[in-house]
This record gives sequence, C-alpha cells and structure tokens, in this order.
Amino acid sequence: MKLSLPVVVQKLEAGKDGLPVLDILDQSLLPSQIVRLQLTTPEAVQEAIRSLRVRGAPAIGGAAAMGLAVCACRFPEQTRDGFLNHLRQTGDYLKAARPTAVNLAWAIDRCLQRAFGSMADVSALRQLLLDEAQAVIDEDRALCESIGEAGLAILRPHVRVLTHCNAGALATCGIGTALAPIYKAAEHGWCPEVFSDETRPLLQGARLTAWELSSCGIPVTTICDSMAAQVMREGRVDVVIVGADRVAANGDAANKIGTYQLAIAANYHHIPFYIALPYSTIDRTLADGSLIPIEQRSADEIQHCPNAAVYNPAFDVTPHELISGYITERGLFKTLDLNGVQG
Amino acid sequence: MKLSLPVVVQKLEAGKDGLPVLDILDQSLLPSQIVRLQLTTPEAVQEAIRSLRVRGAPAIGGAAAMGLAVCACRFPEQTRDGFLNHLRQTGDYLKAARPTAVNLAWAIDRCLQRAFGSMADVSALRQLLLDEAQAVIDEDRALCESIGEAGLAILRPHVRVLTHCNAGALATCGIGTALAPIYKAAEHGWCPEVFSDETRPLLQGARLTAWELSSCGIPVTTICDSMAAQVMREGRVDVVIVGADRVAANGDAANKIGTYQLAIAANYHHIPFYIALPYSTIDRTLADGSLIPIEQRSADEIQHCPNAAVYNPAFDVTPHELISGYITERGLFKTLDLNGVQG
Repeated sequence: MKLSLPVVVQKLEAGKDGLPVLDILDQSLLPSQIVRLQLTTPEAVQEAIRSLRVRGAPAIGGAAAMGLAVCACRFPEQTRDGFLNHLRQTGDYLKAARPTAVNLAWAIDRCLQRAFGSMADVSALRQLLLDEAQAVIDEDRALCESIGEAGLAILRPHVRVLTHCNAGALATCGIGTALAPIYKAAEHGWCPEVFSDETRPLLQGARLTAWELSSCGIPVTTICDSMAAQVMREGRVDVVIVGADRVAANGDAANKIGTYQLAIAANYHHIPFYIALPYSTIDRTLADGSLIPIEQRSADEIQHCPNAAVYNPAFDVTPHELISGYITERGLFKTLDLNGVQG
Repeated sequence: MKLSLPVVVQKLEAGKDGLPVLDILDQSLLPSQIVRLQLTTPEAVQEAIRSLRVRGAPAIGGAAAMGLAVCACRFPEQTRDGFLNHLRQTGDYLKAARPTAVNLAWAIDRCLQRAFGSMADVSALRQLLLDEAQAVIDEDRALCESIGEAGLAILRPHVRVLTHCNAGALATCGIGTALAPIYKAAEHGWCPEVFSDETRPLLQGARLTAWELSSCGIPVTTICDSMAAQVMREGRVDVVIVGADRVAANGDAANKIGTYQLAIAANYHHIPFYIALPYSTIDRTLADGSLIPIEQRSADEIQHCPNAAVYNPAFDVTPHELISGYITERGLFKTLDLNGVQG
C-alpha cells in the first residue's frame, strides 16, 4: 500500500516575489477545512507557531528553521554584519512564539550557528540557511522512517493499535513517531487498525489523529479517553503506542495528560505499552520522572461552572515499570536506564 | 453546616387554574441558566423527560409519577371508567419518553396499580394519585438520606473524594446516591472536598456535579476523565464513590462509561472504590456483569472527523473484584453476592 500522507512543512521554490516560501498545512482548521498557508515574514511565521497552525515539536522545529531561512532571503541588508544582526533578531523573535518548545529553540540556534560560523557572503549565507533548514526537515523525515522500521518488530498483520493524542505525521516533518510503525505496517500490507483516544481537553486525537489516519485509508475509530479500558476488556486492542514529550534517564516518560491512566489500564489487561520517541527526547540530566516539570494549562479549557475549581495539567509522567519498550531511531529497547551510562 | 440543595422535582399546590402543578429544575440549561418549569400537560411532561430537562433514574420516577397525577387532575372525564381509561393512555404515553428508563415505567405502573386497585370515585382517585406520587418522591428522599448515613462510615473529616458523572441531588428527589455521603459529611462539619471527572461525552460531571456541589458551598475541582490517575498519584484522593445504573447478583456494576477505567486506576493506587446505590438497582436475574446489555449512543457525541469511525458505549461494567464496598439504604456491604440467596 502506497501512503499519501499530508505534507506538514515544506519549502516552495518561488513565491510571488520569486523568492522561496514556507508552505504549511494549517492544523488549527483540521479536520473541517484543509487550508495551506504560504509564509514569508517573521510575523506570519511566529503567528503560525503561536496559534498552533503548526504544532508537534519536530514539525515546529522544521517550520521555524525554514521560516527563518525564507525571511532571511528577504532581508534588505547587503553587508554580512547587517544581515547577521537581522538574522539574530529574527531568530530571537521566532523563538519567543512558544518559549517552552525545546525543538523550536534548538532548530533556530542550529541555523544561527551555521550562519555565524561561516565566512560566506550574504548571498551564500541565504543559500546556506535554506540548505540547513532543509537538512532539519530531511533529518526529521529520516528519523521518523527509522522509528517506523524499529516499531515494525512489535506489530504483525491485522494488528490493532490504540494511541493517545497525536504523535503522527502532523506532529513531524515525516511519518510521525507513535504512528510511524502503523504507517510502515500499512506499507507492508499488514492492514493495521487504530483506536484513537479523543484526548481531552484539546481533542488532538479526535481532530488530528483520526484525520491523518483516515485520509490515507487506515481504519481508525475515535473513542473518549475514558473508554480505553472498556475497549481493552473487549479484547480489541493488541498494543498501545504513544509518543513522549520528555523522557528521564531511567525511562520514565512525560507525555500528554491521560497517558499514565492509559498505561495503568494496559498493564491491568496485560497489553504491551510502548513509547515511540526520537532519542533526543531523552533528557539525561533528569534521573527520574519526578524531576520533569508539569505545565498547567488554562482553566478555560475545561470549565463549565464558574464556582468550581479546575485542575488542568498538560502532561503526566508514566513510570518506566509500566512501559514495555521504547521505539527509537536507534532501534527498539525493552528498558532504558541511562543513569550512570557514559556517552 | 446546613445545606441548601436544589429541589429537582416537587408539587406546587396551585397553578393558574387552581390545580396542582409539577415543578422541575430544567437541568438541560445548567449551569449557565437556572430555570424552573411548571408542567401540567402530558406533552410537557413527556418532553421534559425526553429532552433530559429532568434526568437520573430516581428523579425521572418522581417527575413521571407527579406528572401523571397533575395531568389527571385536569382530565375532563367524570366517570371512573372514562377517567381510568384516560389515565392508562397518559401513563403509556409518558412511559414512551425514555423506553429504557426502568424507574420511569416502575413509577407509572405503581401509580396506575394504585388507582386501578381502588374503588374510589374520580375526585378521590385524583387525590390518591397525588398522594402516591408524593410517596414516590418522599420514599426516594428518605432512601438517599439512608445511603448518605451508611456512607459516612467510610469518610472522615477533610476527606477528599473523587466521583464520576452525576449521581447527586440532581439525579434523585433527595441528596443523591454517590454524593449523599458527601452531603452528610458536610452537614457534620467534616469539610469534604471533591474531584469531579468531567465525564465525556455529555459532561454531566463538569456541568451538573460541579454545579450542585459548588452551589451548596462544597469545594469541587473539575478534571478531565484522563486526569484521575494523575490526581491519585499526587496523593490527593482518599476514596472514590460513584453511582450505578444496574448491579448484577455477584456485585459487578454497570455505570457511566469511564467508571471501569477509574476503578482500575484506584486499584493501582490502593485507593478504596465504592459504589452507592439503592438496593433496587441490584438485578438478581443477572448472575454477573457480562449479562448486562451495554447501550451504544450516537456517534455525533464524539465525531469530529467524518471519515473516522466512532465507538460510543454509554456504560461499562466494573467487576466486583475492583469494588471495595456497596453503600445502600440497608447499610454498607463489603461484598455483594446474591447468587443463590433467597428473598
């Protein structure tokens, strides 16, 4: 089966002014509208990141890098110093779009370092930035492919996978992380089926995962987050695969709120529970999950009753003992314990 | 602490025409609007039940019984036979409002039997129906009080309770079932605190439980259903109490979807998990929970993406081994196994 996946972030060679353009799929309108945006200014790129038109750490990284490069193609400065000064200002401005998004700062800094470390003239610097941004995108695409290949080892024909939130093509520049093994299985003709938690409060599962899987013909069934245990009890789930936002050195994994409850339910039903992640998601500076800070989001996302309080953590931490394995671009690991390991 | 709980269903002595009236709180508008409706016609009573303006099995029973009685006060027939014929027609019409609501048919049939079993004239039959309807309401109120008293045994000052859906005052003619022990604890000055699952897809927790608890001054915090395990992990829950729609003879309990997943999470964290229920909720004809039919609701409640399928069971069944005890009007039971028990 040949997949036709949505292109989330790409460079178009020439906009109206003949210069390269950043082209993104506007995810804030999915699934009701499929709109692509062509961006050429720092303001437009920052707004797209801030308003979640592009979301998912790797996709944000790719969009920010290419956004910086296409903006730099339009800088008026003709001198190296003037150009680099403008470049740094623009990089700082884009990084402010989502201050906690690690990939955003990483991608911008990588491109800035490449430019500042080069002796090239302005024209060559522009090409160098475009090439570096394309490298960020291409490397992420290759990384997703490798995660997908590694994850095939835990799947088989007609496998039924349950996932949470969206760690799919829409979150990356390639075929996703948690959904990558599913796409690889589909390419092999294994006909995977997916249950997708709707993922309250922001419904990334119901809106994004359901859309991207169904738009390339993979059967997907949306359920409320509270239904996962019931679906498991009915014997309709073979394996759970989710993504991760940050993994501690001992393998404890922070991911979208609800992941921990799902891991407990999988454990109760003896269903394997896997985390798919780029190896860079592992934060070796944190010995265990208790050190991962948990962001609180706005009460408005849940509140119906103004006299009631609201608790709205964005993430939770699943302890490593509930995790059957880690699917990474370096292969599949049954356990992950990097405390005290060098290199 | 003296509670001021909402009155869900009551008789008002005289409407515009001088005859008794059914007065209900319109729950379909909560929490944004507090509207009371005065109903005097079969059409209005049926619509209120069908449109969930009154919901919760015991509250529906009380509203249906009093609805039938106030309608009968306005029947034009002067002969016993004509009146009873009209009464049966109206009873059948009201029962059709929600065919699967067991308490609805039970309350109507009880009132019909009372009338058909009496030799009274039309005027006396009208009073008899009003008295029987009031008895249905008063008995439910007393039953809720007894459940509340029985549940006190598992609580203590400053207890922190987690609940799911709405098995509170809004679902009954009294102080509820699952919330009854909480109200009793508040009356005793024990200052209970509550976490309320929002309860997707229809959000009865976020809309109704949060409203009724906060409106009588009990601190309540709304969370997404997927956050319950995280709140437990943080050590912020002492006990879980939920209601039940139907309990099998071995103690397996059907309740709102998500209850089973919550019970698994409570079990994992060694937090006691209680079911509060009127003893009549036990269906002794069912040996275990696998025999309880699970209603599927409309895909529209969850669907965002038309090409994705939806699975939307209204209930799930929690096996008795995950239940720490049963809070009933006959007292608190650690186990419930009525298979083979007489009487």
